[in-house]
Amino acid sequence: MKIRIPATSANLGPGFDSLGLAIKLYNYVTIKPYTCQSISIKGEGSKNSRLKVNNIFVSIFHEIYQELLGEKGNFRFEFENNIPFSRGLGSSSAVIIGAIVSAYYMANVKITKEKVLNIALTYENHPDNIAPAVYGGFTTSIVDDGIVKSLKKDLSKDIKAVMVIPDKAMSTAHSRTQLPKSYCMSDITFNSSRVGLMSAVFFTEDWEMLKFVSKDKLHENRRMKKMKELFDVRKIALNNGALMSTLSGSGSSFFSMTYTKDADNLVRKLKESFKTFKIESFDFDNIGYKIIES
Amino acid sequence: MKIRIPATSANLGPGFDSLGLAIKLYNYVTIKPYTCQSISIKGEGSKNSRLKVNNIFVSIFHEIYQELLGEKGNFRFEFENNIPFSRGLGSSSAVIIGAIVSAYYMANVKITKEKVLNIALTYENHPDNIAPAVYGGFTTSIVDDGIVKSLKKDLSKDIKAVMVIPDKAMSTAHSRTQLPKSYCMSDITFNSSRVGLMSAVFFTEDWEMLKFVSKDKLHENRRMKKMKELFDVRKIALNNGALMSTLSGSGSSFFSMTYTKDADNLVRKLKESFKTFKIESFDFDNIGYKIIES
Repeated sequence: MKIRIPATSANLGPGFDSLGLAIKLYNYVTIKPYTCQSISIKGEGSKNSRLKVNNIFVSIFHEIYQELLGEKGNFRFEFENNIPFSRGLGSSSAVIIGAIVSAYYMANVKITKEKVLNIALTYENHPDNIAPAVYGGFTTSIVDDGIVKSLKKDLSKDIKAVMVIPDKAMSTAHSRTQLPKSYCMSDITFNSSRVGLMSAVFFTEDWEMLKFVSKDKLHENRRMKKMKELFDVRKIALNNGALMSTLSGSGSSFFSMTYTKDADNLVRKLKESFKTFKIESFDFDNIGYKIIES
Repeated sequence: MKIRIPATSANLGPGFDSLGLAIKLYNYVTIKPYTCQSISIKGEGSKNSRLKVNNIFVSIFHEIYQELLGEKGNFRFEFENNIPFSRGLGSSSAVIIGAIVSAYYMANVKITKEKVLNIALTYENHPDNIAPAVYGGFTTSIVDDGIVKSLKKDLSKDIKAVMVIPDKAMSTAHSRTQLPKSYCMSDITFNSSRVGLMSAVFFTEDWEMLKFVSKDKLHENRRMKKMKELFDVRKIALNNGALMSTLSGSGSSFFSMTYTKDADNLVRKLKESFKTFKIESFDFDNIGYKIIES
């Protein structure tokens, strides 16, 4: 079997741990029964030999497969990793979702998207990346009593993602330590009111409102201080047609949304200023994970 | 001229200062040129003689009328007040909106709903009640640089509001002093993620999700401790078909949403337990303020 899982961008400014969307940048994993355990990696991580021994995808796959069938199988795993690691593009979520879905598939047990999402939550504590990796599109999610509740909206072809992917990582754990322990009500209301209106904007497609609703007062600027070029990324993006421009997850990538007609120009402008960063435009994914070969 | 302005319920649980909706409970004001200044009040406030001397509606009306025409006119104001005072039903917002719209009307100057809303914001600091009083329906709003941005969704006839209106007031100012000065990130995320999903629920009409998204960790329980019967109101409502049940604004009223078919039964159940409270079901208003006689 072969599965693909999309990259995702979470938070979208104020939507800490709740809002996310999926883009057409995919990891692919091919899995087949084999005489022994075998791993090959192309793309991201291919030069990291530890990933052949200590591979999270393979660990989660075996854990679930064994739970389902009571025995450990031997498989060959072929990874084609296109989602950069530790760049705020949901690479961990893609690994977790891919491992869960393929373990069920190889064990020949059916599983709903809802169940995939809730198993994934036990590996990753917040639903902002896993929900769009499962459903595609834009997702707005909560965790209620350990269960993810989520609504999804397909994203139009009129809009595109422009991703700026720095050559340096920002680890989520470290990034979270930059945040204060408590916040005042005016900043909370600033953000939470924007989360509400941003959800509505994605459902109504009033894209011109994005520049107002994508502002954040709780986490973004504090995290961006670790990589000050990101302030210029945002400035250049918003001055060149971006409808919104926000830190992708906890960084280091930056996500901008533009009308499709403006995407190429924005990519060009950003490339002029950030020679060492990878800058590319993507369509949005409205499907989520998909088994593309049985 | 005669204007009507709807009552509103704000917050809806987690949506502090941002979410609100309008119900078919109206204040009416008739205004005509007169030989002197004259005020008559029916309904709420009719027994409060101070309201004939120090009347906020009349003050705002004159302030705006004078700004527009440079002179103070003489008018007779006839109030038919059906929205209870200080019960979290948006009576202040109704006064402010009514005064702004009628001052423009009597001065013969056209005004858009958007401008009404932004003038209203200068009298009331947050948009959660004024936005639905202007537009009707469900509104999700932010304040960006002193300007309200808002999206509205019409509310279906399949759902109704059941309002429990206690015989005692809770002042907003006092109610706000009950709240702590700062909050931790987990409670903030609990709420803000629900604000996002709640907005989506109103746009998609996935009403069954309301019970999960209407929970709050920032303000409701602290405020309800001043009137402990409200915990029982919520319990009885949720046990008798309410889709959600939340403090209306800063109280003392309690707002429950039900399917229309369940509304009468819920009213009956609540009346059995709360003999001194006013309990009534209302359709939702999807129009906002309206000039009903020219």
